[in-house]
Amino acid sequence: MKITHYKNISPTGFSSKTVKNVSGRVAIGKADGADNFCMRVFTIASQGFTPRHSHDWEHEVFIHTGTGKVLCDGQWQTVSAGSVVFIPSREEHQFINEGEEELVFVCLIPAGVDEL
Amino acid sequence: MKITHYKNISPTGFSSKTVKNVSGRVAIGKADGADNFCMRVFTIASQGFTPRHSHDWEHEVFIHTGTGKVLCDGQWQTVSAGSVVFIPSREEHQFINEGEEELVFVCLIPAGVDEL
Repeated sequence: MKITHYKNISPTGFSSKTVKNVSGRVAIGKADGADNFCMRVFTIASQGFTPRHSHDWEHEVFIHTGTGKVLCDGQWQTVSAGSVVFIPSREEHQFINEGEEELVFVCLIPAGVDEL
Repeated sequence: MKITHYKNISPTGFSSKTVKNVSGRVAIGKADGADNFCMRVFTIASQGFTPRHSHDWEHEVFIHTGTGKVLCDGQWQTVSAGSVVFIPSREEHQFINEGEEELVFVCLIPAGVDEL
């Protein structure tokens, strides 16, 4: 069994034209023996955003803290602590944080794709 | 895409000799088209506990709010908001809430077993 706090896991920062103020952590993955699916924890600082993209695998997302917006079927929808988001494969999606507080969310993916 | 708040999902309560003050919600499952893994959200009210058991599938857990204890390799370890717990298949486990605040956590399982 593995027990830790997500903040104890070393973050990887992402910054480019398409992603800003985002860091990600692999919380539970192949290195832990998780063979079926992978838990990542992402933080989007104020004014940050993830890439607008789609891919062949799904996301299962739970918002832990903060407030943000998710692009859903071409419309922006507000999410906050306790929100649940299921993004099926091949659906375009993006998360943005226009607030002051960090947006922290858990995002799970199936095994077999890059963990981060 | 599905976006909701976990509190908008109807809870199922559990109460028996082995489980107390626990409710569970299927947040993302087969009914949503999630074919690989399933997200549930559990709430343990004060003085509640989940069954002490083991089974053939893993849990990937993220603590959303509250404080609790997890039985880990025969020892009780404290978890709180932001804690991550990976319970491999066939490892005995139990969650208890000895605090006053509700313990709320996300618990993911692979597809193919009962969602709740």
